[in-house]
Amino acid sequence: MEITDIDGVFCSGLKEGRYGLGLVKVKGSVAGVFTQNRIRAAPVIVCEENIREGMVEGIIVNSGNANAYTGEQGLKDAEEMCKIAANLLGCEEKRVAVASTGVIGRRLDMEWIRRKAPEVYSSLGNAPENAHRFARAIITTDRFVKKAHSERAGIAAVAKGAGMIAPNMATMLCFAFTSAKFESGELYEMLKNAVDSTFNRLIVDGDTSTNDTVLLVSTGREKVDRDVFEHELHSVLYSIAKQIARDGEGATKVFEVHVEGGKSDDDANLIARAVASSLLVKTAIFGCDPNWGRIIAAAGYSGADVDERITLSLSDGSEEIFLVDSGRPLGTEEQARRLMQNSENLIIKLRLEKGAGRGFAIGCDLTYDYVKINAEYTT
Amino acid sequence: MEITDIDGVFCSGLKEGRYGLGLVKVKGSVAGVFTQNRIRAAPVIVCEENIREGMVEGIIVNSGNANAYTGEQGLKDAEEMCKIAANLLGCEEKRVAVASTGVIGRRLDMEWIRRKAPEVYSSLGNAPENAHRFARAIITTDRFVKKAHSERAGIAAVAKGAGMIAPNMATMLCFAFTSAKFESGELYEMLKNAVDSTFNRLIVDGDTSTNDTVLLVSTGREKVDRDVFEHELHSVLYSIAKQIARDGEGATKVFEVHVEGGKSDDDANLIARAVASSLLVKTAIFGCDPNWGRIIAAAGYSGADVDERITLSLSDGSEEIFLVDSGRPLGTEEQARRLMQNSENLIIKLRLEKGAGRGFAIGCDLTYDYVKINAEYTT
Repeated sequence: MEITDIDGVFCSGLKEGRYGLGLVKVKGSVAGVFTQNRIRAAPVIVCEENIREGMVEGIIVNSGNANAYTGEQGLKDAEEMCKIAANLLGCEEKRVAVASTGVIGRRLDMEWIRRKAPEVYSSLGNAPENAHRFARAIITTDRFVKKAHSERAGIAAVAKGAGMIAPNMATMLCFAFTSAKFESGELYEMLKNAVDSTFNRLIVDGDTSTNDTVLLVSTGREKVDRDVFEHELHSVLYSIAKQIARDGEGATKVFEVHVEGGKSDDDANLIARAVASSLLVKTAIFGCDPNWGRIIAAAGYSGADVDERITLSLSDGSEEIFLVDSGRPLGTEEQARRLMQNSENLIIKLRLEKGAGRGFAIGCDLTYDYVKINAEYTT
Repeated sequence: MEITDIDGVFCSGLKEGRYGLGLVKVKGSVAGVFTQNRIRAAPVIVCEENIREGMVEGIIVNSGNANAYTGEQGLKDAEEMCKIAANLLGCEEKRVAVASTGVIGRRLDMEWIRRKAPEVYSSLGNAPENAHRFARAIITTDRFVKKAHSERAGIAAVAKGAGMIAPNMATMLCFAFTSAKFESGELYEMLKNAVDSTFNRLIVDGDTSTNDTVLLVSTGREKVDRDVFEHELHSVLYSIAKQIARDGEGATKVFEVHVEGGKSDDDANLIARAVASSLLVKTAIFGCDPNWGRIIAAAGYSGADVDERITLSLSDGSEEIFLVDSGRPLGTEEQARRLMQNSENLIIKLRLEKGAGRGFAIGCDLTYDYVKINAEYTT
């Protein structure tokens, strides 16, 4: 199922070298969640302003240049992108959402965008081929396009994001569409919750881009139960988050960290985040080394209330190997090592004895290729 | 100048394969600063307790096993280490400080320590050779011994710490001795301040060990002005912090981050820390890539109050290349790249326009060898 299978979504895109341009025609209510970086790219500022009234008629996206740290000129350029889309789509400029990804600190090549936009517009459509063109237009160094859907709730989403950073940093753009009828306010609540428990749990290298943008547009043609929709929206974004981790620059393994028994959910999340962020844990996973001491140490410095009574296991989803039982090492490193060698998806579980708090994070390993990609890229 | 040049300091040590044992005989007032990790190794707990009264007569240290995450037995073993030293030195057990570094989660080989301690004791002395033996006994995968001194204030210090993590994590142990006369309370204040502005600004991979220990012992034979002493103590620990960064696993370059113009010192320190911790910045420095966008983005997500008005320069200590002037990119990447290629010591300066806050951090680059060392080490 593609985004074009959502009734009312028309799109297209083109790629020319490192640059891409994508366009979506879609009328509906909209909600957006944006980067938490204090340095926000011009398109983030303009997009948030434009969707403030909760209605959208089109989306324009470029790749190859983030239009970030570009001052007043950047804002003008992002506004002009909206205007170009609005003129083509026959709507108000304020009804266009805009996003960019790529190098920061350089002015957009507006001449190129002005020239290419009509070309993209002329190929708009709702065939799967159109969805593919849009998806390809928005990626940068992604090794594959990320997408997920829920037939049950009528949701389809497409995203870019190479977990780590390419070429300049790991911008994540995600465009989700649904035929389910919800107002902008409801969409925002559900999207915020879903992003909090998926993308915001994804730690690839801890660097937050200036351009992250997640949009959810409802074309409002079907009635769907809110509980069902929330559950399905979470599943769709969760699938995309895992795909982004999988495409983390140089990553060979994806892992989840589940924490229970924390003093509070906040504490448990601090621990999950510290473990998923630890370079020592990330390199140990790359090396298939069940070095549980690194995991325990990360829990210890996470800032959460922690003592030695920790039970720790490693799992591939079917088999679970316990390494530490309430503070007592079990000497099962060899079984754990074999499990790590045979799976690209690992689950680290920590159970504390502090309370009922639960936490969660998604991470990927740290490899030679990560260093290579990020050291050898030159500005 | 060696630690044995401080009047009243006698020491020795031995190394046998991956294991080492060091002993110091020194009578004086003492202060200690320990790891902030919630999971504290047994020797940290015992040492902090033993120096509570501010007096010490001996120090015993082992390397190769951290005696961390070892429960009740670990505490008993750390206490036994103190007892062994006390018996040899002829003092109370409570007058012995203890420290360990190495693998975590395994019981100490007490039999080995019981057997070797008299051997080390019998070679105690105050010749430079004795200081060397002690220094070699406490290192793990360090490529070199770290030491620094101040003739002016009568301070000499020796340390181990391979910035990153070896074999299990980056434990830092530092033993500083002074002939200057200060009480334990004064020593603690001065040590705490000096550690805050040196070791606590050192970011190699962000993982905090369970065993970090910094001790300062005064043999109290000379009167030194407190201001002079504070200044010199800072210089000694700063030198050691830089040596540790230089020995960061796989590191090829050390860099300092100086931030000024922050809303507050806290804000400026948040920024310095975020820049020094960023994997993107660390890989860019390894690749000699003046990718200032990564530095600006790290400032943006640091949590500090930041806007685009940032002035950014790169320096090797003599030449300074400005890359961004109050938000305006200057297009000087090629000069900056040459500077990076020709220096192993870099200074990144950020000037914000938010206030008078100043901050500081020390970091090192992230290299293939870091991944290699930490992925290939097997438990």
